[in-house]
Amino acid sequence: MQTTNIDHIRHSFAHLTNIAVRKFYPKAQPAIGPAIEHGFYQDFGNVKITDADLPKIEKEIRAIAKLNLPFTKELWPVKKAVDFYKKEKQPYKVEIARDLVKEKKLTKLGIVKTGDVLVDLCRGGHIKNTKELPLDAFKLTRVAGAYWRGSEKNPMLTRIYGVSFQKKQELDRYLKTQEEAGKRDHRKLGKDLGLFAIVEEVGPGLPLFYPNGALLRRIVEEYITTLQETKGYQPIWIPHITKGELYKISGHLDKFDALYPPMKLKGEADYYLKPMNCPHFMMLYKSVLHSWRELPVRWTATTTNYRYEKSGELSGLTRVRALTQDDCHVFLREDQIETEVNLMLDMVQEVYGRFGFKDFWVRISTRDPKNKAKYIGEERIWRESEHILSRVIKKRGWKHELGVGEAAFYGPKLDFIFRDVLGREWQLSTIQLDMNLPGRFKLEYIDEKGEKQQPIVLHRAILGSTERFLGILIEHFAGAFPLWLAPEQIWILPISDKFIPFANSVAEKLKAESKENLRIVVKSENETLGKKIREGELQKIPYLLIVGERETQNKTVSVRTRGKGDIGQMKIEEFLGKITAELNQRKSAIISINQR
Amino acid sequence: MQTTNIDHIRHSFAHLTNIAVRKFYPKAQPAIGPAIEHGFYQDFGNVKITDADLPKIEKEIRAIAKLNLPFTKELWPVKKAVDFYKKEKQPYKVEIARDLVKEKKLTKLGIVKTGDVLVDLCRGGHIKNTKELPLDAFKLTRVAGAYWRGSEKNPMLTRIYGVSFQKKQELDRYLKTQEEAGKRDHRKLGKDLGLFAIVEEVGPGLPLFYPNGALLRRIVEEYITTLQETKGYQPIWIPHITKGELYKISGHLDKFDALYPPMKLKGEADYYLKPMNCPHFMMLYKSVLHSWRELPVRWTATTTNYRYEKSGELSGLTRVRALTQDDCHVFLREDQIETEVNLMLDMVQEVYGRFGFKDFWVRISTRDPKNKAKYIGEERIWRESEHILSRVIKKRGWKHELGVGEAAFYGPKLDFIFRDVLGREWQLSTIQLDMNLPGRFKLEYIDEKGEKQQPIVLHRAILGSTERFLGILIEHFAGAFPLWLAPEQIWILPISDKFIPFANSVAEKLKAESKENLRIVVKSENETLGKKIREGELQKIPYLLIVGERETQNKTVSVRTRGKGDIGQMKIEEFLGKITAELNQRKSAIISINQR
Repeated sequence: MQTTNIDHIRHSFAHLTNIAVRKFYPKAQPAIGPAIEHGFYQDFGNVKITDADLPKIEKEIRAIAKLNLPFTKELWPVKKAVDFYKKEKQPYKVEIARDLVKEKKLTKLGIVKTGDVLVDLCRGGHIKNTKELPLDAFKLTRVAGAYWRGSEKNPMLTRIYGVSFQKKQELDRYLKTQEEAGKRDHRKLGKDLGLFAIVEEVGPGLPLFYPNGALLRRIVEEYITTLQETKGYQPIWIPHITKGELYKISGHLDKFDALYPPMKLKGEADYYLKPMNCPHFMMLYKSVLHSWRELPVRWTATTTNYRYEKSGELSGLTRVRALTQDDCHVFLREDQIETEVNLMLDMVQEVYGRFGFKDFWVRISTRDPKNKAKYIGEERIWRESEHILSRVIKKRGWKHELGVGEAAFYGPKLDFIFRDVLGREWQLSTIQLDMNLPGRFKLEYIDEKGEKQQPIVLHRAILGSTERFLGILIEHFAGAFPLWLAPEQIWILPISDKFIPFANSVAEKLKAESKENLRIVVKSENETLGKKIREGELQKIPYLLIVGERETQNKTVSVRTRGKGDIGQMKIEEFLGKITAELNQRKSAIISINQR
Repeated sequence: MQTTNIDHIRHSFAHLTNIAVRKFYPKAQPAIGPAIEHGFYQDFGNVKITDADLPKIEKEIRAIAKLNLPFTKELWPVKKAVDFYKKEKQPYKVEIARDLVKEKKLTKLGIVKTGDVLVDLCRGGHIKNTKELPLDAFKLTRVAGAYWRGSEKNPMLTRIYGVSFQKKQELDRYLKTQEEAGKRDHRKLGKDLGLFAIVEEVGPGLPLFYPNGALLRRIVEEYITTLQETKGYQPIWIPHITKGELYKISGHLDKFDALYPPMKLKGEADYYLKPMNCPHFMMLYKSVLHSWRELPVRWTATTTNYRYEKSGELSGLTRVRALTQDDCHVFLREDQIETEVNLMLDMVQEVYGRFGFKDFWVRISTRDPKNKAKYIGEERIWRESEHILSRVIKKRGWKHELGVGEAAFYGPKLDFIFRDVLGREWQLSTIQLDMNLPGRFKLEYIDEKGEKQQPIVLHRAILGSTERFLGILIEHFAGAFPLWLAPEQIWILPISDKFIPFANSVAEKLKAESKENLRIVVKSENETLGKKIREGELQKIPYLLIVGERETQNKTVSVRTRGKGDIGQMKIEEFLGKITAELNQRKSAIISINQR
């Protein structure tokens, strides 16, 4: 059986939304209504609609669909179409018609009729009859505001979103994933778990982190820093601002859109907040002489960059204006590319295994062979490094796609796209070869013959940014972080005040005897045990240890684990052994990644 | 025997400098010539003098002094003085004369003659005769540029500095200290030891740190962070920028001079780089409800602030524009002040003991009792907290001074002034009570009765700023950091390539068997042992371990310690025991501070 094109179905639902809305709100002025991922939307001017109005509109759409109306297309002379929409008081359609004429020099315009009900200016892509619409796989979802043509200078329109699929099961699966994603929303969990806040007076996209959120940042960042050190990367430190001169050299001053405007000082150069670290790294490398023996110079810094993203595009931790990168720049010789890329791949594999993201693929971006002139750097290095990047990925058996023509103008790159527990894809790690900045900054090293050579630079980030990574991590784990990541790992709950001393002694003993620097809180507040347990569960604490009369006498703890509840009484040493094993398991969990 | 007033001696030397310079450069136009700490200076316009000219000028001063010229003072009518200086082409003296008349409504001006040689407009403070000048305790030291009246709008003058004391021994001691300070100059050592760089294209006052400098920062900052955590302080994380609105609330927008100018965005509020952390802390506290039970809330952040200091005032790490503070804000109830201040004092004592600054005193700054109106906050809290600050310092027997009238308008404070190994004083730690910001930000907690109360805030920094503290630390230790602080603690030097495997195995063994996370470098470069040892000494590495045939066979290392040289061969375990003891000694070194 042939199925109807899903985009035609979705776009046809937009037409029906147009009809249904104007039944209730005759003065509504329809604008555009395209098919999008998972569904469609339809914009209207001159109307006020809220989520509460959606059920009646949806009901009306279903009713119209059941009228079995045919979609028919006609070609009208431009004047007829414009006059029609003027008469109908549909100014957005008039504007679209005029623009079509202006841009494409059309003399006739495509008009789509739905039965006799709607006459719509439309480029087409419809089903044949409303009876084809899978009504059990359709739903209106929400109302939002949207500027006409996406510009803040234009009027704000009302946008109705709907979802639509071929089959009911697809809709059900989609809605379930959405519901789950909603529960896992890191903005909600960030608040519930006391991780971070976005504060009006400080500004959008600039989260502040409470102690537990700051601790989560540190655990993640210190893990990366320590790992990097064991691999021979050295942290440096750079300030967050610079004279504009630095970005003149790097070229960012002209080309980087998200640069914050300058701080204008009297009698001094303009200063800028750094939106990326590369130029600072280049200058520090340049400030001393380097011999070929020292290369590769592997420098890293976990430092915050500031990018002026539009406020409408900001969201929780995943789209911010302050982004802390685990940034690394390696200055190397041509013969060191493969070794260094492999070292980076080892780290990517190690890190994502630890965090439990096992499902990923790699985009290998190379030059457009038809337009080689737009790339800078030596042909030999391009050819060689493109081969190396392909070879090392294939050798590991990692799933990949070739992005021909998607290389940066300064070199080929690898991007790593990970899939979270809900199946959503996130681009995180990146490895980029750079033949541009070393030239712009006139970087050098002295080769074996005592001659000056230009090093190549490899850029690399593993997490991408701490903020975005934490956002993803919170949703991936739904806030129930594995033991090694949990800001608070263990709560000890004395049944009454009488057992606080024993609770404290358990905490001391665990801390003293573990090598793991355990994060333990004794909950000595004067509350009922039931309330403390509920609070611990809401806060998604991995272990709750209850201590009362029996535990004090036996030198034991009653253990509740997250998700499972009570797992019984055990000796303190036994509990310590259990969590040590859990933490060490993490340590040896170098994953065997999906070899697809 | 009565000694001559040292300031009179110094000022008299300035007069003789005036005479001597004009002998060689008759068109030089003298400006001011005051006594200062350790000596004097004399400014001149219309002349070019360099350090190379100082010996001849100094010789001439000595010759003039030996003429036994008397200093005599006369009163001249204003017109006579002005006419005289006009005729003599001394425009700065003319300007001084006119200003004196304008400001003080003088009709006669004090003129000082040195014999018949110099007629100088001067407020006095001289010796009687040049024969009193202690010529063996005098020296011209350097030439510098200085703006007339300190303003960049005025002409640049030439300033000659001299030092002068009562006795030769004092001069010798001063010169020796200066020489030592020069050798210890952190700007020079910072370069020699590869710690940091100040880069023209990034800007003055914005140091970038090489790996060893970044590591030194981290060792210091992590020590403080960990110590704070054991004392119940919790790190938070805040962004480096904010809307101006935050500083409107705090009052900094109008009153804080060193604020960088705003970043002006279209259609959005102005953003500012943060010059201090308090307002961000206040907002984060305010973003959730607090109960009296939670207090004290002890929050800390090691985060960089940006202050626009004049470029002429910047110097290495000690005067920077990017300063990273170990900042802490405690939100507390009135009844918690003493406990919290004591906790802070414990930390100050602990930290400075560890770093080896044992010599310090405290300034206790209280209100001016005659002008109570200029302070805000409740009289009761002022009285009580002033008493507490005095009491806790006295109880510890710490040397202190009362700074009556030196409190901030928002509360009393404690400043800690430490003396380094050269006897120079540095104000580092500060503890300040604040009754202002909690009011401006309308901070609250819910008290036992369920009513809203305003908390008090204590500000506290221990190191002051990481950058300045490191500058002081580098000079205090002359770059020879104690083992626990040294970025590179141990170098292992194989005598030839043949012994590199054994050198690596020693490094592995030391790292594996120590709990201290040792920082070891194996120097496997193809260089002579002598060259490697010299390099290790220049880099002030605490331990150099030499391994060759004998060591490989005996499983030993030949140990050289910094400053002492070869201390013989020892088993690896023995060496490990030695350095572990050295590191642990540091750990238990809670000092008994000078109880003067």
